[in-house]
Order: sequence, then C-alpha cells, then structure tokens
Amino acid sequence: MAKQKKFILQENEIPTQWYNIQADMKNKPLPPLNPATKEPLKAEDLYPIFAQECCSQELDQEHQWIDIPEPVLDKYKYYRATPLVRAYELEKALDTPAHIYFKNESVNPLGSHKVNSALPQCYYCKEEGVTNVTTETGAGQWGAALSYAAKVFGLEAAVYQVKLSLQQKPYRSMMMRTFGAAVVGSPSMSTRAGKNIITRDPNHPGSLGTAISEAIELATTTPNCKYTLGSVLNHVSLHQSIIGLEAEKQMEMAGEYPDTIIACFGGGSNFGGLAFPFMRHNLLDGKDTEFIAAEPASCPKLTRGEFRYDFGDEAGYTPLLPMYTLGHDFKPANIHAGGLRYHGAGTIVSQLIKDGMMHGVDIPQLESFDAGMLFARTEGIIPAPESCHAIAATIREAIRCKEAGEEKVILFNLSGHGLIDMTAYDSYINGDLHNYTLEDSVIQENLANVPEV
Amino acid sequence: MAKQKKFILQENEIPTQWYNIQADMKNKPLPPLNPATKEPLKAEDLYPIFAQECCSQELDQEHQWIDIPEPVLDKYKYYRATPLVRAYELEKALDTPAHIYFKNESVNPLGSHKVNSALPQCYYCKEEGVTNVTTETGAGQWGAALSYAAKVFGLEAAVYQVKLSLQQKPYRSMMMRTFGAAVVGSPSMSTRAGKNIITRDPNHPGSLGTAISEAIELATTTPNCKYTLGSVLNHVSLHQSIIGLEAEKQMEMAGEYPDTIIACFGGGSNFGGLAFPFMRHNLLDGKDTEFIAAEPASCPKLTRGEFRYDFGDEAGYTPLLPMYTLGHDFKPANIHAGGLRYHGAGTIVSQLIKDGMMHGVDIPQLESFDAGMLFARTEGIIPAPESCHAIAATIREAIRCKEAGEEKVILFNLSGHGLIDMTAYDSYINGDLHNYTLEDSVIQENLANVPEV
Repeated sequence: MAKQKKFILQENEIPTQWYNIQADMKNKPLPPLNPATKEPLKAEDLYPIFAQECCSQELDQEHQWIDIPEPVLDKYKYYRATPLVRAYELEKALDTPAHIYFKNESVNPLGSHKVNSALPQCYYCKEEGVTNVTTETGAGQWGAALSYAAKVFGLEAAVYQVKLSLQQKPYRSMMMRTFGAAVVGSPSMSTRAGKNIITRDPNHPGSLGTAISEAIELATTTPNCKYTLGSVLNHVSLHQSIIGLEAEKQMEMAGEYPDTIIACFGGGSNFGGLAFPFMRHNLLDGKDTEFIAAEPASCPKLTRGEFRYDFGDEAGYTPLLPMYTLGHDFKPANIHAGGLRYHGAGTIVSQLIKDGMMHGVDIPQLESFDAGMLFARTEGIIPAPESCHAIAATIREAIRCKEAGEEKVILFNLSGHGLIDMTAYDSYINGDLHNYTLEDSVIQENLANVPEV
Repeated sequence: MAKQKKFILQENEIPTQWYNIQADMKNKPLPPLNPATKEPLKAEDLYPIFAQECCSQELDQEHQWIDIPEPVLDKYKYYRATPLVRAYELEKALDTPAHIYFKNESVNPLGSHKVNSALPQCYYCKEEGVTNVTTETGAGQWGAALSYAAKVFGLEAAVYQVKLSLQQKPYRSMMMRTFGAAVVGSPSMSTRAGKNIITRDPNHPGSLGTAISEAIELATTTPNCKYTLGSVLNHVSLHQSIIGLEAEKQMEMAGEYPDTIIACFGGGSNFGGLAFPFMRHNLLDGKDTEFIAAEPASCPKLTRGEFRYDFGDEAGYTPLLPMYTLGHDFKPANIHAGGLRYHGAGTIVSQLIKDGMMHGVDIPQLESFDAGMLFARTEGIIPAPESCHAIAATIREAIRCKEAGEEKVILFNLSGHGLIDMTAYDSYINGDLHNYTLEDSVIQENLANVPEV
C-alpha cells in the first residue's frame, strides 16, 4: 500500500481555541517592567501601544485555552488547516532512518505563518475602534501579512521595513502596497528614533529593533493608531499556537508522536506556535520531546546572549522584558534571514530555556542555504531563508539519527516560502554568499540602568 | 452554522486516471499534418521530439480514461488535491448573487498548475532512457515546474525563457537555476532559429513561438534529449485534467454544479484541465454548462484568429496543427501575462470552438489587473497576471448575474500566484501599465503554403 504523504484536516476539525502555555509553566515568566518606575507592568500600561485584548492576553498566566473570536476563525477557514507533510524525499536523500515531518505554513496567504497573528491583532484593533495600525517587518513576511489583515478588517496600515530587507527583497514591499499599505525603510527620517540612529550611523542597515522603535513612535504619536508586533510577545505565540494544535491532530493521523520538534527562531512566533502545544504534554503528561530553536550564528541570543532585563527595541520605547538578549542596540550582520535579525528572545521562551525545557542551536548562513537547496530539490518547495535554519537543524538531527541508527520522529516548521527571497538563492548559486559570526555583528554597550535579574 | 469555505480531498480520493476528452468528442480534432508530405501524422512521426508515451496520448481518440503511472501519482500526492474555495469575500465585494468558486492551483509546488504535466512528461522521458529535457517558457511558470520535475526524475533540463519574461520576471529564472536547470533567453544566438529571428529583428522581445522553435531545435540536435511542452498539445490537457476531476468531486462536496466555468487561455492547458472533465457531462449527460476562455485583448486568437492549419512555433519546426491562429510568427505586445502570449489554440479547443461548445472573451491588460487587485484584497492571494484574466471574466459574469438577479454558480481556475510578477503589480499601482490591442501586436504574412481547412 502506498505510504501517505500528507495529513490534512477538514474545516470542522480546525481548532477553535488557542493554547496559552503560560498557564501551564511551572516557573512563570518574570513580569515586564515599566522602565520609568521599574514596577511590574499592568495590562493598562500597554493600552497606548497595543489593542487592549492583546494586552490582557500578554499577561494572562491563568487561562490555558482562549477562544478564537468567530470573525478570526471565519478568516482562518479560508486557508487553514495547513498540511502536515512527511518529507520522504528528504529522508531518502539523507539516507536517514528518522521520520521527518513538516508543517507547511508556506501555503498560507502571503506565504508564511505570520497571517495567523496578523488577523486577530487587526480584528481586536478594529473592535475597539482603531482606524490605523503600524508595525515593523524584518524580512517582510510579517509586514505583508499585516497589510493583508488590515485590509480585511478595513484598517489603514503603515509598515516600517528594515532598510536592508527593502534592498534585498523589493517584491515584499510591492506585496504590501498591493494591499494598500504605506511602506517606509527603517531607520528613516520620519521618526525621532530613526533620526537618532541615522545621525549616529548614516549607513545603518536597520534591524527589527530599529523598525520596532519607529513603529511604536508612530503609533503613540498618531491618533487612533495602534502598534502590532509579528513576534517576541506572548500574545503572538498564543495566536500562532494554532499551528501546533493542528499539527498535534495531524501527527495523530500519521500514527506518530514527535521525539524532536524544530523551528527557526527570530523572536519566537513560529517556534512557539509549533512547539508550545506539544510542550504542554512535557509539562503535564510526562512526555519528553526535545525542542530545538534554530537561530543564525550571527545573531545567537539563545546560546550566547545574557538573560536579563532589556528593551525590545533599539530606542528603548518598550517595557523592560526579562529575556536572553544581545543588547537592544545590537546591530546584526547582513544575513538574508531578515526575520531572524533580532537581538532578544520572548519572555516565555527565555524562561523555558532557563528551565531546560528547550535549547538553541546556531546555524551559519551557508549551512542554512545548503539545507534550503536540498529541501527545494527534494520536496519541491523553495523555503524562506528563515525556514532554512530549521531545515539545517533538522538535517543535523537526521544525520545524527543515521549515525546512531535511531528511528526518531522529527517535526519541523516550514514557516514560509522563499519566492520573494530568490536573490539570496541567486547569490548562493553564484558563490557570493558568506558566513557571518557574532563577531561580524556590532554589539554596543547598552545594558546600563536596567535591573539585574 | 458557519458556511464552509474550502473543500478538500483526502489523499485516497485523488483521481488515479486522467480524462481524455478526445474519446467523447462528436467531431474529432482534425489530424496534425506532416509539413513535408501534408499527410496526417502518425505517433512515430513525433518520436524524435517527444517521449513516446506522450506521442501516443497526443493522438489517442479512443481511450476515455488513461491510468496515471504510479510514480507520477506518488509525486502528485505530495501536493494534490488542491483546495476548492468559495470566494465569499469577492462575492461580497461585488454584491453579486452568483456563487463564485475557484480551484486554487497557486498552492502547487512552484506556484501554478504547470507541475501537473511536468511530472508525467519527465517521468515518461526517464522511462525511455532520455537523459536531457528542454522546453520553452513564457512567464516562467512552466519552466520552473519543468526544472523541478526534471530534478525529481534525475534529468538535466535546459529552458528557453522568452527574453521579455527574463527581464520582467528575473526571480523565475533564479527558481529554475535553484533546481539546477540551465536558462537561456529567447530568441538567442544558440540556435539557428534564434539567429534567424535576431538577424531579422535584433530587438525581438521573444514569444512562446520563438522559444518553442529554439527548444525543439535543441532537442532534435542533441543526443538523448527530448522536448517537453507546457500547453497547447492534447497530452498536456490530458495530464491537467486532474484539476477538473478533483474539482468535480469537490463541487459535489459543496452541493453545487457549475453553470459557468472560466479559465485564462494561452495554449489551453489550465483551461482544458479544469473544463474538459466537466464538458464531458455536456457531451454525454445533457448538462449545459457554459465554458469561457479568457484571453488577452492583445493576443485574441480565439475571437479574432482564423481556423486553419498553422505551425505551433515561430520557425515552423512543428507539425501543421489545425487551430485558431493569429499566424505562427505573430509578435504579441509586451503584456505581463507572458503565459498568454501565444499565437494559437490547441487542436481540441479549436474544434470545440468550431462546434460551439465553448467561447473566448478578450480582456484588456488594465481590466485584468483591476480584477487581480480586487481578488488579492478580498481573498488574500495575489494572482498571476495570466490568472487575472480568468478573474476579470468571472467578475464580468458576476456583475451580469447581479444585473439579471441570477444566482449562477461560477467556477474559475486560479492557475497560479503572482508573487514572481510583483513588478507588474508595481507598475499597475504606479499607473505605468497600459492596455494593448491586437493592433499593437505585429502580424506577419505567414500563412502561405499550408493546406486550407
């Protein structure tokens, strides 16, 4: 009998609640602090920045399950559930006894998992009467998703796209404009934060940290405008948990349970989305799945960052967050995986690393594209440079399984496709792509005046 | 109860046979002719060009159903069935009583329906010991699919991409190279056919007709190399019938049957793929579904072409085919829908038009992008410029339904996404896009020396 490749859910099997891992963590994440008072933040403190419902979700350590609002579920149903695919061709190419599965978020509208959180964030903004939303985007995946979601709920969107990304991935800004969004390269002269950066460093290529500063400044100085974030924060992982909840049902259809779960790691949204629903069985049901976050060697906050309070953005507009960080004005090297060029990890993930529930691995840029090329040629999908990091980590595990003769079940998240990142593949094929290490990035001395953890 | 948006098939429901409409046509297509002898072609006459199995399928007017070979079905299962989606958001935007469904071929690997025929063509080549394949590509969708399929079956691929398309869509050639294919702009100096065109017209932007000539010349002058074609021919429509066969089951799940079926039209592959399985119920079961092929106003062979014998390529390397044609050295205007820049219609479609079983409509470029923008903003998928023509024709029908108060069921084919065509959207948004008519294209006097129909 032919082996089944694809495990898909019907519309009525799509989860109707998100999973909030905070409720099940033994050690809760430390509270974010108000930078002025150094007091733990209350939800209300975040109201000027985010939709109120997102602020409540952010700090919710109580409710394990949170209902997906009907209008969001209604939009989810156009594209979810995404397929779970057994990567037989990749297994064959690696000659590994491991069973490799991937959750294919690349078939989502706009090409990545990002839309899963863009829709609820825009919905909550709409519900409270907001008319304008703004955000940052690293590779452009989040910006594109947000632009679409804003259009869906009748909001105007302005996106600060990292300048380097605008140059590397011009098609993504075209996508955003197709949905009616305004796109500005960051750092820009349109905000105080941007001006400060450009004054200090006229050729700054931008980073997620700079773009977040500019977007927050726009949101807090514009009437009826809220900020939205594509990763890092707890409510974003919450929305993304739809990925793992679906995957859980789909792995059941496949008759297996993952020994190892892998996702790339920028701020943690696709990682948490896939991992947390499975991690609850480690926390509650005695499972011992291994969780691996694949980060770029040039931006290794999980393995080489410090756990402490730091800002989430370059200018220091955000609350102080307890996290593994390379410093909030860390200037990452110019790798193509723009979505991973972020200095810090989310507070949940940071706590989980401290607690030994998961760990990071560092992937050099060339190894990530070696992996991406092999995946494209075996499975027919050209992966996003970010997702290439997850594939590289998966390949490392699969080769380890081969050496050890272990038939492990590995599940990774294909967070997005790389069709808008073709110039990166072109550079790789032409031999123009390089490795970068932490030492190629610029670390500033910027950790003064924040409380010790 | 929430209305269902998406109708999906499980892996064991994927059709295992293709549908051959030739067997059911009352008036069979006229035979292709050997251009030297003007005698009807036998399958063997095509062996130097195509895989032998494709040659048999091309002329098969007998078998209604043809088994999909197991290794091809095995690859289909990674990505098929594609979803059938009810376009509620588009309906709402148009305020139409029509029910609009689309078959979403944009989630296929490489982004379009083309892979459905690339896989069997490469498989058949592999089976008969061929080592190299070559082809033409208009927009790059077929070239990308063929490059992937060649890699799957261990063949080397060389693709002639229309020069205009290389300029407009550089990412598509990068995709082909990612799969290891060699890509050459056509017309090129690498073939006699290409040199002749360049000598006559140094700035010729290329067309599907010029690229086909070059690819056939390469195939017939290279040992162990066969040519593959992405559209026009009967065996390509045969392979693409998987689209319509799936859609038939999915419409059944939706509890409706299409009154109108619409697809864009270049050579006929996505049109035939969706339409023919439904048309068999017009031919055999007394259904009266209307079939509409949407072609560009600047390349209107269906509505303004002549039905006669003509060559399928610019240089006259192919057999003489009985078809609606604008002349085989027709030089189409520089529209972005590169896949529709072809002078002729396939022989089956040409016969069906003569028999009144279907008809064409002409869509100006700006109307196609108006439609594409509306679709992107409502349904969240940025359509390929080719697919925009189908959407435009669908919108015309939906508006007609609104005016007449008719609750028609319309099904169209979303043949591919437009993420690699973002420069076209950018031009549209910037107001730089223009309409072209037939009079903006160049018609040569080239129909001498072919038999009258």
